[in-house]
Amino acid sequence: MVEVVGTAPTSAMFITKFVYRRSWKTNAYNIKLYFKDSIYLFEMVLSEQQKKEILSQQSQKNTTKRVTSPELEKILYEAMPVLDHGFVRVVDYMGDDSSIVQAARVSYGKGTKKVSTDSGLIKYLMRHRHSTPFEMCEIKYHVKLPIFIARQWIRHRTANVNEYSARYSILDKEFYMPSKDHLAAQSASNRQGRGELINGKQADEILNILKKDAEQTYENYEFMLNERFDGSIINESNKGLARELARMNLTLNTYTQWYWKTDLLNLLNFLSLRADSHAQYEIRAYADVMTNTLKKWVPITFDAFMDYRVGGMELSAKGKSVIRKMIKGEKCDFDSSSLSKREWNELMESFGFKEKIL
Amino acid sequence: MVEVVGTAPTSAMFITKFVYRRSWKTNAYNIKLYFKDSIYLFEMVLSEQQKKEILSQQSQKNTTKRVTSPELEKILYEAMPVLDHGFVRVVDYMGDDSSIVQAARVSYGKGTKKVSTDSGLIKYLMRHRHSTPFEMCEIKYHVKLPIFIARQWIRHRTANVNEYSARYSILDKEFYMPSKDHLAAQSASNRQGRGELINGKQADEILNILKKDAEQTYENYEFMLNERFDGSIINESNKGLARELARMNLTLNTYTQWYWKTDLLNLLNFLSLRADSHAQYEIRAYADVMTNTLKKWVPITFDAFMDYRVGGMELSAKGKSVIRKMIKGEKCDFDSSSLSKREWNELMESFGFKEKIL
Amino acid sequence: MVEVVGTAPTSAMFITKFVYRRSWKTNAYNIKLYFKDSIYLFEMVLSEQQKKEILSQQSQKNTTKRVTSPELEKILYEAMPVLDHGFVRVVDYMGDDSSIVQAARVSYGKGTKKVSTDSGLIKYLMRHRHSTPFEMCEIKYHVKLPIFIARQWIRHRTANVNEYSARYSILDKEFYMPSKDHLAAQSASNRQGRGELINGKQADEILNILKKDAEQTYENYEFMLNERFDGSIINESNKGLARELARMNLTLNTYTQWYWKTDLLNLLNFLSLRADSHAQYEIRAYADVMTNTLKKWVPITFDAFMDYRVGGMELSAKGKSVIRKMIKGEKCDFDSSSLSKREWNELMESFGFKEKIL
Amino acid sequence: MVEVVGTAPTSAMFITKFVYRRSWKTNAYNIKLYFKDSIYLFEMVLSEQQKKEILSQQSQKNTTKRVTSPELEKILYEAMPVLDHGFVRVVDYMGDDSSIVQAARVSYGKGTKKVSTDSGLIKYLMRHRHSTPFEMCEIKYHVKLPIFIARQWIRHRTANVNEYSARYSILDKEFYMPSKDHLAAQSASNRQGRGELINGKQADEILNILKKDAEQTYENYEFMLNERFDGSIINESNKGLARELARMNLTLNTYTQWYWKTDLLNLLNFLSLRADSHAQYEIRAYADVMTNTLKKWVPITFDAFMDYRVGGMELSAKGKSVIRKMIKGEKCDFDSSSLSKREWNELMESFGFKEKIL
Repeated sequence: MVEVVGTAPTSAMFITKFVYRRSWKTNAYNIKLYFKDSIYLFEMVLSEQQKKEILSQQSQKNTTKRVTSPELEKILYEAMPVLDHGFVRVVDYMGDDSSIVQAARVSYGKGTKKVSTDSGLIKYLMRHRHSTPFEMCEIKYHVKLPIFIARQWIRHRTANVNEYSARYSILDKEFYMPSKDHLAAQSASNRQGRGELINGKQADEILNILKKDAEQTYENYEFMLNERFDGSIINESNKGLARELARMNLTLNTYTQWYWKTDLLNLLNFLSLRADSHAQYEIRAYADVMTNTLKKWVPITFDAFMDYRVGGMELSAKGKSVIRKMIKGEKCDFDSSSLSKREWNELMESFGFKEKIL
Repeated sequence: MVEVVGTAPTSAMFITKFVYRRSWKTNAYNIKLYFKDSIYLFEMVLSEQQKKEILSQQSQKNTTKRVTSPELEKILYEAMPVLDHGFVRVVDYMGDDSSIVQAARVSYGKGTKKVSTDSGLIKYLMRHRHSTPFEMCEIKYHVKLPIFIARQWIRHRTANVNEYSARYSILDKEFYMPSKDHLAAQSASNRQGRGELINGKQADEILNILKKDAEQTYENYEFMLNERFDGSIINESNKGLARELARMNLTLNTYTQWYWKTDLLNLLNFLSLRADSHAQYEIRAYADVMTNTLKKWVPITFDAFMDYRVGGMELSAKGKSVIRKMIKGEKCDFDSSSLSKREWNELMESFGFKEKIL
Repeated sequence: MVEVVGTAPTSAMFITKFVYRRSWKTNAYNIKLYFKDSIYLFEMVLSEQQKKEILSQQSQKNTTKRVTSPELEKILYEAMPVLDHGFVRVVDYMGDDSSIVQAARVSYGKGTKKVSTDSGLIKYLMRHRHSTPFEMCEIKYHVKLPIFIARQWIRHRTANVNEYSARYSILDKEFYMPSKDHLAAQSASNRQGRGELINGKQADEILNILKKDAEQTYENYEFMLNERFDGSIINESNKGLARELARMNLTLNTYTQWYWKTDLLNLLNFLSLRADSHAQYEIRAYADVMTNTLKKWVPITFDAFMDYRVGGMELSAKGKSVIRKMIKGEKCDFDSSSLSKREWNELMESFGFKEKIL
Repeated sequence: MVEVVGTAPTSAMFITKFVYRRSWKTNAYNIKLYFKDSIYLFEMVLSEQQKKEILSQQSQKNTTKRVTSPELEKILYEAMPVLDHGFVRVVDYMGDDSSIVQAARVSYGKGTKKVSTDSGLIKYLMRHRHSTPFEMCEIKYHVKLPIFIARQWIRHRTANVNEYSARYSILDKEFYMPSKDHLAAQSASNRQGRGELINGKQADEILNILKKDAEQTYENYEFMLNERFDGSIINESNKGLARELARMNLTLNTYTQWYWKTDLLNLLNFLSLRADSHAQYEIRAYADVMTNTLKKWVPITFDAFMDYRVGGMELSAKGKSVIRKMIKGEKCDFDSSSLSKREWNELMESFGFKEKIL
């Protein structure tokens, strides 16, 4: 990460954006990890208090007998920008690659001798879905994210969460506005996907609506509370509506924040679902940044995860039979495959045989 | 439940509202269950298709060797109104009071002979927090509820959920509007509570804002989708914004719906937290209706739950020492109690000794 | 199931044994389900009280508005023999294939129209690991099993369990003795697998030891308790050792029993791990019987499970690249594959290319 | 901890044994924590390899920006003896008291100002069962324990476990033998409790049986494996029985070991159940040592836990009504209490009113 000279660090900066894509449809046999140095307009504004807190956390220098993950330590507490006002911060962790190995060796006892290297053992565990050793590592994130994304995220139940409570306190005046790069039309073929970009006047109109509606509903939120975000009272002779009621007027792109803690196994599950090309872009943006923290934290596990999960695929019994015939050069077409058309196409696409797609 | 003659059953009806209150503060030693026959303006409007589906489900008459809960069968599938447009429906269940007893007797083997009655055994299990037999019953609800309540609800992680997806489909045009009875000001003493009601002009203003903002953001939702709820296209020459994006413009009082399935133990945990007087009114309204289904489903467990959980309380070690002195007539005041002022007051309040509150 | 004329029903009977095997190693592309009518010496002895209880449960005939699974109803409560003294009984269930469809359609709303049949939708959900609708069904088993198998089984945490407590009551005098068909030597190549059978004198010796040690430790268990299983006191002038202590003298093949309840998704996970050829035979024996109950309960889900899970396989990114080259007829051998030798062999074996195994 | 000069550190040593008791029956209003310096015959024998590993772990000195718990660091990795051959080691942790506070302040936002101190906030959270902030801390133990205790322990499902696998490797020749202090008769009044001690000849006989049976079954285990624990082959011309089968001959007091990781909230649940006077002594011995690690790790939480959980009690609605009458000096006896006799006695006992027990 290289800061732009003369730029206030929290308003605009260069970031090294880690990019990876799982697309089992289009480039599944050709996984690439590349890093893009790009100018990214980072609008995330940390409050003075938050900046102070982060600096104070980062200046801690404690001694411990626990294992540490040196690369993760380097970015600990750092607010990594996501979307227009969101961020992801790693605020604590427990264990590293060696903790997985240690737990596996306790399980297998003297029987683990054969797999001689840590890397070999971790790959073996990943390949055969021996999942419990991966539960021995834990990580805690501080995340700022729009409410409609929080609603997708929370469906991962095996995690611990403390979310900012709008019953107790007033929410910040911050809303997610998609960039024009992501303002996509509804996909015609995929009910939960996006199609081509919306451009020109229609795009402007949409962004204008999103902005206006969010601001108006927030203003009315303050009005009903009879209190502005900074704590000042609007009309001294009025009562304010209960916070737990007033919040219902906010739109779903309002930002919230939470502490989210999970073990490594469930983090991998989260990432394999949410960094997938089928996930909504806005949650993928978070998953991408978190995948980068995974790489720093447990690099061996990261490699195994990319090979066996992200770049891998599943074959059904029928699909396997088709593939086997194709390898042996036996006649094999859709009609004799006993696959549905959709399955056939998905299979051909995942191997990149576009000419066979019906 | 008595229907008003000549009234369309789904637009307005009399309902027998079951009311119970846990207030460990004010009337904890005096639990009352009362039924109130009242005219309740029920605006819930079921679509024709929903009405047909419910009728078809209710007309099922299957034979089973499984245990059944006759009182619950009577209201199976029925849409019980909650708030202005919400409902709770029991759509499936497994087990009854006897299933708890059966599981406990498997655990204790011949050792259970001493507790002779089912009721005695269930009370014993509840009192001593022998919780696993209560996990042997399962229930599934279909719930329609505002999004801001869904966000509280989903924090109960040990449940199974299928929620209506606004990535796939367009949400209904229905918003929660608090009735004037529940339009309360922020409590001055309790940061997450409500104070007195807001009346008159200010109340009208607030309700007007809530209505206007919800309608406007929904209209703009349709506009961005370029599609109305009924599926008609707004402007044939435009593309529609992806559903997964457009939804971010909706306000948090928009209704969603889900199937929610949980075991009896976790249902009791849910109810003891959400039917409590500290819970937000809007989720309590759901918990109240569900408590009524609990009573029909497992009446013995319901009684034990009311006695040991809802009407019960917890004493700390220090609090117990205070109570013991008070019983023995020994001198016991705040200064010698080693309780904090807040704890002292909570303790005195929960026993109804208002004169001792500082 | 056909009873042998003149045979006491609980001591020996013909059973229709359902057999399936997942062996992603040997016959993975050739999944077969076959039913074998065979004489199986069933030594399971139900007590008079158990027989009475089962008969009474099976004679229940209740009316319900809930969905029922007619094939499962037929075997409800029946004790299906497993191993020498164990059994599996389905004692309750909730939902069927239609419940999965119903939950999915609530999630997808109007967006599900495209997948027109229930079967198509369930296959789609299974293929794309849309797992939550499968959580909407629940099943409860009563299982009698050896303690060392119970210790494997209990590692599946997302289930509800009530086990017979040896703190409360005395355990039955029943131990698992492997049949000679399953008395296998340690595998030389697989640290957690079995090799060829042990025969002759050595087999007799081993079975003799197992029997003698189990009987002796049980006898001493009774002696320490100063009480026989039937409740009679051994020595009136002695105290008995606490049950919670005496049990520690029992061997791990002693039978225990429990109620085990789980949702369909977690049942599928259990079966895919425990009915796999890598699972220990003794737990596979239970998983086989339970797979048969799955087939009766949710036949569409069963088919999808056999195709996508049991008969399916996972490919890593590297493995996929190898397969792609093989299909295209490009040069592809171990050296250029970037797979480890073990991975290469596993891959070739799973497609049945034995000649390519190194 | 003070070592005895001239004593091999792993065969016998002085330990400072932390003792606490929750007995809501007898001394519930008078919680005492006392430390007993005593000579404790510690037979735990660590292998040379284990000793080397522990020393190497303890000599680690890493720098971290994470919060550390200085008192816990002091005993990190140390094998604290439990029972005759067992131990508990803390091998990793994440967070401390300040992490709970931090998570709570994220939840409550600006609304937490009123509770000014960390200690006040933690007490408040504990008292009102605001449980999620306690989930933000995590701890990992390495435990060596008898199998029959492992079977109780594993019922706590919200934890991560890696247990030594007897399918992979041969179990150590170590069995739990109760000391004479704990060789208790079955309680006559409590089916899952212990009565008075068994003494004299009967005690000798019992201990002799336990020893003989464990040794004989272990010897036969080796014989069937055709391999001794040290890896030497018994009879070169024989095959060994598969480990996954041979293990079934072991008795339930054989020691196993595992890594066990849980969050702080679930640790508190574990301790409140397992350090309770109703828990079996052998698991309480582990819970006691772990409670001591709790005190070192999160001292403020420990205090709140002792006050609100360990020393606290629950009152039912009816019980509360009785207590209220007693305080007010109103007539209140069993007959008018509407409690069962058992409940009445439990209530009187928990307040220490022995004269009122019927």
